[in-house]
Amino acid sequence: MGSMFLLEEKERNTVKQCCFASMYKRVDGQVMKRLEEIVEGRIICDPERMRDYAGDEFADPSIRKIPEVVVQPKSTEEISQILKLANLEKIPVTPRGGGTGLCGGCIPLYGGVVLSLEEMNSVLEIDKENMMAVVEAGLTLTDFYGKVEEAQLFFPPHPGEEGAQFGGLVNTNASGARAVKYGGIRNYIKGLEVVLPQGEIVTTGGKYMKQSSGYSLLNLIIGSEGTLGVVTKVVINLLPKPQAMYTLIVPYDSLDRAIETVPEIRNKVIPMAVEFIEHDVIPPTEELLGKNWPIKAKAYLMIIVDGASDEEVFSVFETIGDICLKHGAAIKSVDELSIADTPKRQRDVLEIRSNIYSAIKKGLIEILDITVPPAKIAQYVSRVHEISEKHSMWLPNYGHAGDGNVHTHIMKVGITDGKLDEIEIEGWKDKYPVVRAELHEAAKRFGGMVSGEHGIGLVKMEYLPKFIDSIQIKLMKGIKRLFDPNNVLNPGKIF
Amino acid sequence: MGSMFLLEEKERNTVKQCCFASMYKRVDGQVMKRLEEIVEGRIICDPERMRDYAGDEFADPSIRKIPEVVVQPKSTEEISQILKLANLEKIPVTPRGGGTGLCGGCIPLYGGVVLSLEEMNSVLEIDKENMMAVVEAGLTLTDFYGKVEEAQLFFPPHPGEEGAQFGGLVNTNASGARAVKYGGIRNYIKGLEVVLPQGEIVTTGGKYMKQSSGYSLLNLIIGSEGTLGVVTKVVINLLPKPQAMYTLIVPYDSLDRAIETVPEIRNKVIPMAVEFIEHDVIPPTEELLGKNWPIKAKAYLMIIVDGASDEEVFSVFETIGDICLKHGAAIKSVDELSIADTPKRQRDVLEIRSNIYSAIKKGLIEILDITVPPAKIAQYVSRVHEISEKHSMWLPNYGHAGDGNVHTHIMKVGITDGKLDEIEIEGWKDKYPVVRAELHEAAKRFGGMVSGEHGIGLVKMEYLPKFIDSIQIKLMKGIKRLFDPNNVLNPGKIF
Repeated sequence: MGSMFLLEEKERNTVKQCCFASMYKRVDGQVMKRLEEIVEGRIICDPERMRDYAGDEFADPSIRKIPEVVVQPKSTEEISQILKLANLEKIPVTPRGGGTGLCGGCIPLYGGVVLSLEEMNSVLEIDKENMMAVVEAGLTLTDFYGKVEEAQLFFPPHPGEEGAQFGGLVNTNASGARAVKYGGIRNYIKGLEVVLPQGEIVTTGGKYMKQSSGYSLLNLIIGSEGTLGVVTKVVINLLPKPQAMYTLIVPYDSLDRAIETVPEIRNKVIPMAVEFIEHDVIPPTEELLGKNWPIKAKAYLMIIVDGASDEEVFSVFETIGDICLKHGAAIKSVDELSIADTPKRQRDVLEIRSNIYSAIKKGLIEILDITVPPAKIAQYVSRVHEISEKHSMWLPNYGHAGDGNVHTHIMKVGITDGKLDEIEIEGWKDKYPVVRAELHEAAKRFGGMVSGEHGIGLVKMEYLPKFIDSIQIKLMKGIKRLFDPNNVLNPGKIF
Repeated sequence: MGSMFLLEEKERNTVKQCCFASMYKRVDGQVMKRLEEIVEGRIICDPERMRDYAGDEFADPSIRKIPEVVVQPKSTEEISQILKLANLEKIPVTPRGGGTGLCGGCIPLYGGVVLSLEEMNSVLEIDKENMMAVVEAGLTLTDFYGKVEEAQLFFPPHPGEEGAQFGGLVNTNASGARAVKYGGIRNYIKGLEVVLPQGEIVTTGGKYMKQSSGYSLLNLIIGSEGTLGVVTKVVINLLPKPQAMYTLIVPYDSLDRAIETVPEIRNKVIPMAVEFIEHDVIPPTEELLGKNWPIKAKAYLMIIVDGASDEEVFSVFETIGDICLKHGAAIKSVDELSIADTPKRQRDVLEIRSNIYSAIKKGLIEILDITVPPAKIAQYVSRVHEISEKHSMWLPNYGHAGDGNVHTHIMKVGITDGKLDEIEIEGWKDKYPVVRAELHEAAKRFGGMVSGEHGIGLVKMEYLPKFIDSIQIKLMKGIKRLFDPNNVLNPGKIF
């Protein structure tokens, strides 16, 4: 059944691509000249250099596509002019941020123009009085964290990849591990400047905290994957910096037991993050980074707690420790718990957690982003293990145990003695769609959703209609038509 | 200028009402019979009894309108059938929750059917493992708080009026005082069952914490004031119950000084709520309730802090106390601070704060819901005082100093010795539109928005286009047409 889905999907995509392709014009010499004028020469047409703009971090390079031209606008006004031209000439425009996406959302499927936001990367303002930052959409998380730190303030969301840019973060409603306490990026986005697909520049929201003034176009654009407008500026709500923040690693002999601990923790306290990790993926990451994970067991919970003082955090750790012991953690007493209590130790464990993806990527087919009700993770992961065994495929899991977002990895290699095998498993190309379908069926059965934080992009389009009914998809398509009647902005994505 | 706006608006409304009215059919005998069958007799057609369904808490009763019929469905399926019938017969349907709104959002402007959710008021589930509740849309806040308390969990948002029902709370993106730390209700709504205007039943979201799977119809419906669908079920994320929660009242000799304290507090700690109150409105409320406000000064900050222990909360109060002293609070030392440290004392001060509106309502023309960047409150309130003086109108302010949402009250009476005057001020009917326009102009100048938590409804429609550009309003209207091509659901609201 799974492989049938995939075949159908491939066919459908080919057909769709042809139909669409005939709708669009090629970027001819005249359009190229006009684009060059608009962006004052910040244009790339060399196919070799355009390779860098052909895809994102999705593992399979065959989905990448080299655009006809890349432009690097420096202002909202330039973007507006580009989109007006694109509508006039019927040329597709694909906005691009850091290219750190995981499902092909920024791939220029029908060629045309890639609109890279990389030159619009300033922090325009850190407004301490209002606890708001105003940034350009091309700003990376790394650069933003630096400025926020300088101002002694705090931006809670922490999606793993710090090369991500704000335009992309907003457009995928990115969240990451700290969502358990602080929620996703949606909670912090208070205003947006957006260039609509036909070139109009609008501002929605502002430096105020609450709004109930007409439909929330702000919240409609958050998570719309660059299909409803090009986000150019972002107003971000900041918090005071927590005085203390520590990371706890709790070892377990079984992943199930680790995960089963989580609901009781969440009933009692609010950690910033509760991650679960199977040991399998640790050694390749240790090797990649030349760093050591502090303990060894079959599985771990990694729990981050912040608070107003060390005492407060340690007292929360005691509560958590007792709960973990009760649920069979592989420790004899709470005193044995491994706390990353120096900034360096914390950085090390967080770096290992953040780099698992890089460490196993070369053997990866696809990273899933399934989200289930938090208390259903244990059942979902058991089912992953069954599917893994049934198809003899390595399907390592790690993810956000605190919020139900599980990143199952479909691998084309196995692992032996902590090293990824060199040889691909036999028949993985046939197994992949079957395994993928079975995993998504499990997610659906447990009341979950296809994507928690990565988005649908190109790669997960097949699965959206299996989770969301056709009426809602019809409404989404209607909204897209309303915003973008000529379908020039990031066409062929989501649905 | 102000009065011109109002005249234009009145004319426009009359014209609009006529045009629309001709679009709709009256509820005739046959339709009435069909409705009666659908809701199994839970129907009201007696004009006297229908008075209770004619309006909301907006002060001016002249905007109320008695519908042709009120239905009290008991299931989502019944609502679906009612809407299908309404589309077939071209009859307007106005959904109604607790009727606690403040801007006429539930007024059946063109007659037709009022769809009251009051019979759908169950807590369907408190799911402790997933920290989620599932409730019917007609459930009141009071009933919900009770159930959540029983489960030893916590629902942070606290809009003042506990008679509000969840359908209305979702549809206005209600928030209240605790938004400073916890954000508005949007942050807690994880799933909705909605009957779309043409009768289709859809579910968006679920018991999962994060979602990035297509456009967020969930977040589009939140705050849409019953114009895009009838919300029937709500999935609500809950938190563990804070172990300690206390309320601090800080007296000031001047409101300006009180408000100027707030940005520094917010830079250092995260209180649950920071309210500002001018003393004027306290005596009438004390009298209404027969309760005493603990201290006397010209103005107050009321600060609520929660945490894991008493020590934690009191240590935050010390930090806050020092900041208040530095900014000229009317106390000699931090020890003098008035802390509502017993549950009874806390209930009393919160009850006084919550009942200010009731206490001054008989002299009220309109309560505004302007929201400005938090650090601009002092300037906005100064401007309110100027406008008050200029027009000799009492314009008491109180509201959410921590988040910038100021409820300025336009009064048709003054106050003498703590009692509302019996005699209305001369010429208030002419002054009102001028004052109203000047207050909104000030809000706009300070980068604010017309409504933070009450919504636009009928009453604030005039002001939406002064804050939001015509392109965005056109998009909102397009979305409305997409969802509700026959314009049967709560027509004539927002835009």
